[in-house]
Amino acid sequence: MARSNEHYRKLAAGYLFPEIGRRVAAFATAHPQAPIIRLGIGDVTLPLVPAVVDAMRRAVDELGTAKGFRGYAPDQGYEFLLEAIREEDYASRGVTLDRDAIFVSDGSKQDSGNIQEIFGADVRIAVTDPVYPVYVDTNVMAGRAGNPTQTRQFDRIVYMPCTAENNFVPALPASKVDLIYLCYPNNPTGAVATKEQLKKWVDYARQNRAIIFFDAAYEAFITDPEIPHSIYEIEGAKEVAIEFRSFSKTAGFTGIRCAFTVVPKQLNAYTKAGQAVDVNPIWNRRHATKFNGACYIAQAGAAAVYTPEGQKQCRRIVSLYMKNAAVIRKSLTKLGYQVYGGINAPYIWLKTPNSLSSWDFFDLLLNNAHLVGTPGSGFGPAGERYFRLTAFGNPDDVKDAMQRFACFKL
Amino acid sequence: MARSNEHYRKLAAGYLFPEIGRRVAAFATAHPQAPIIRLGIGDVTLPLVPAVVDAMRRAVDELGTAKGFRGYAPDQGYEFLLEAIREEDYASRGVTLDRDAIFVSDGSKQDSGNIQEIFGADVRIAVTDPVYPVYVDTNVMAGRAGNPTQTRQFDRIVYMPCTAENNFVPALPASKVDLIYLCYPNNPTGAVATKEQLKKWVDYARQNRAIIFFDAAYEAFITDPEIPHSIYEIEGAKEVAIEFRSFSKTAGFTGIRCAFTVVPKQLNAYTKAGQAVDVNPIWNRRHATKFNGACYIAQAGAAAVYTPEGQKQCRRIVSLYMKNAAVIRKSLTKLGYQVYGGINAPYIWLKTPNSLSSWDFFDLLLNNAHLVGTPGSGFGPAGERYFRLTAFGNPDDVKDAMQRFACFKL
Repeated sequence: MARSNEHYRKLAAGYLFPEIGRRVAAFATAHPQAPIIRLGIGDVTLPLVPAVVDAMRRAVDELGTAKGFRGYAPDQGYEFLLEAIREEDYASRGVTLDRDAIFVSDGSKQDSGNIQEIFGADVRIAVTDPVYPVYVDTNVMAGRAGNPTQTRQFDRIVYMPCTAENNFVPALPASKVDLIYLCYPNNPTGAVATKEQLKKWVDYARQNRAIIFFDAAYEAFITDPEIPHSIYEIEGAKEVAIEFRSFSKTAGFTGIRCAFTVVPKQLNAYTKAGQAVDVNPIWNRRHATKFNGACYIAQAGAAAVYTPEGQKQCRRIVSLYMKNAAVIRKSLTKLGYQVYGGINAPYIWLKTPNSLSSWDFFDLLLNNAHLVGTPGSGFGPAGERYFRLTAFGNPDDVKDAMQRFACFKL
Repeated sequence: MARSNEHYRKLAAGYLFPEIGRRVAAFATAHPQAPIIRLGIGDVTLPLVPAVVDAMRRAVDELGTAKGFRGYAPDQGYEFLLEAIREEDYASRGVTLDRDAIFVSDGSKQDSGNIQEIFGADVRIAVTDPVYPVYVDTNVMAGRAGNPTQTRQFDRIVYMPCTAENNFVPALPASKVDLIYLCYPNNPTGAVATKEQLKKWVDYARQNRAIIFFDAAYEAFITDPEIPHSIYEIEGAKEVAIEFRSFSKTAGFTGIRCAFTVVPKQLNAYTKAGQAVDVNPIWNRRHATKFNGACYIAQAGAAAVYTPEGQKQCRRIVSLYMKNAAVIRKSLTKLGYQVYGGINAPYIWLKTPNSLSSWDFFDLLLNNAHLVGTPGSGFGPAGERYFRLTAFGNPDDVKDAMQRFACFKL
């Protein structure tokens, strides 16, 4: 009898974003004339920059010629991209990485979702609350999360609340944990971590033989020069941290699919008997068995992001988005909203007015202002009565959205 | 303590193809002048066809414009591609599929590797021997395979030997199994399954509440009009089978990455208590949580495969490869080799001469003729003393390779 994986039944009814999609689709069907503006799913809206388009066009043309055709990509990525990453993302910040520490993939969602597979079924994971749902859901599917609680959390996960009261900086967990998911700049709160804060985590991991999964998908949005872009800027982090990076938000690659994960050669996990084992070859084995290389065109486009023109063009896009963030922050603050994030991150995290629940505010905003945001409670109970807006909209749409906020009656 | 997933330690030393890569690289370093011809890894060599190149070029250009830009793709794939698949791959063969039965992805290796995740940890799987290693390795990683045996198999997997003695047609398993991996046209043996043979499997699955994973990645290579291209051509198969399809070999997409999986709405799995549950929404949940849509450019290219020009051009490529297969079959038969496959499949499966072990034959062929093939034993013990050649080479290389075979002294 083909038994299903019953852990799936413990998952909440829908993954957050499809649920938003369903509500928006239902509204759009009922009100086909309503001009909806989406500041919900963290999807980019500005076109690919010319340097990337040119590189991808060349790549397509190459593949149409006998001489230029390429089949399967190397498992961990093309040399031209790996070298650019090593130089521009790491060496330029004083971080030296072995070349085979880098694994190019088709997305950080995939990598941060799959990473748990190479660890034991009974390790204890810690996540912030609110948190990107993929970290939790993938552990639920694997049976590592335990059973759902009344707050729709899971009884084997350690949650670290992040609210305005602690300035969205989680405390070290009170009970011992083995795998820690951190995301900075943070999705959804827009908070960042200082070097001192990250050092505490690295020290904790080293003392407890734990591993940190550091999701740095939004590092390009950091504006404060004191904030680290990589966890490897912290001494000793290579022994205890895996880092996820993506071209999705940096270069508008959400529909192209290219990202990478760093698993340093120094990083150890442990057998039941406490013997240290290298994590890098284990991840390589998974990567070679369950993945088949990232699209050549996508890798060629990603490499173009590191050229001087590519850098200039992508920085312009990032700064356009950050101007949106500033507009949202300023407008909502003026309207009396309590607003967080949006300075070193493309996310604005706001308190719902009148202590409305996150989904009530979502529905009101959709029905009365035709605006789509993301309910904070979708990211965890500590996100209840918060709401996420993204800065990825078209600037005109963002301005229009802010006018609607100004006219919006609760 | 970050415990590693110790099931990984049960895996054989290297995944087959990286191991081949290592041996070839070592030989190439030692003999930099040797003109190596690769008929090993099943990678295509002919350039993308013009219809695909044009469509992908247009897609790249679109993404560079404000109006044409697209971010995240729909989870299950773009409508334009789903419709083409439904019409051209299925309706044209009398198979009606619900639109949301189809899941576009970045590869059949991924899909056929990931599918096991949505089933229970203790279900019993059956595979042919020889078999595509990904089916086995992904179950080993998940702990479902049990422990390695002396023959490098696993004690909780049911193996169904396929050799010249049974004409490469496996018998139904003697003990009861829950999930059955079938691949037709077969990798590595090149064998195909008739409607009658598949009907036996569908009947078995219906009687035993089992599910068939049907890997049809090579269906485009079928030349015999009596051989089914889809398992859904068998009555009742929608209740018990998941089908994997790919553009990799059909349209040269190994470096582009686009494939799809069909999970019919009629398909059930079962809870511990024996209650039927729909599999389609479970796979949707996994897809939406651990995947983020296939590259838009790849999907646009894949849709072009279904246009009249795309079909004509891709069929020409397939027939070029099948001419290679005929050349290999004819040449090796003339030289006295026992040769199988290569008529409805791009793989030629041969018996090693003088009862040489597969890896000994691999090393001899590499060292003395500078030819790379795939050792049959890499696909399982019943593949020992067999050897796989692929028809994906450049026609001139294939002719050259056959001359080397003619001069090759053991």
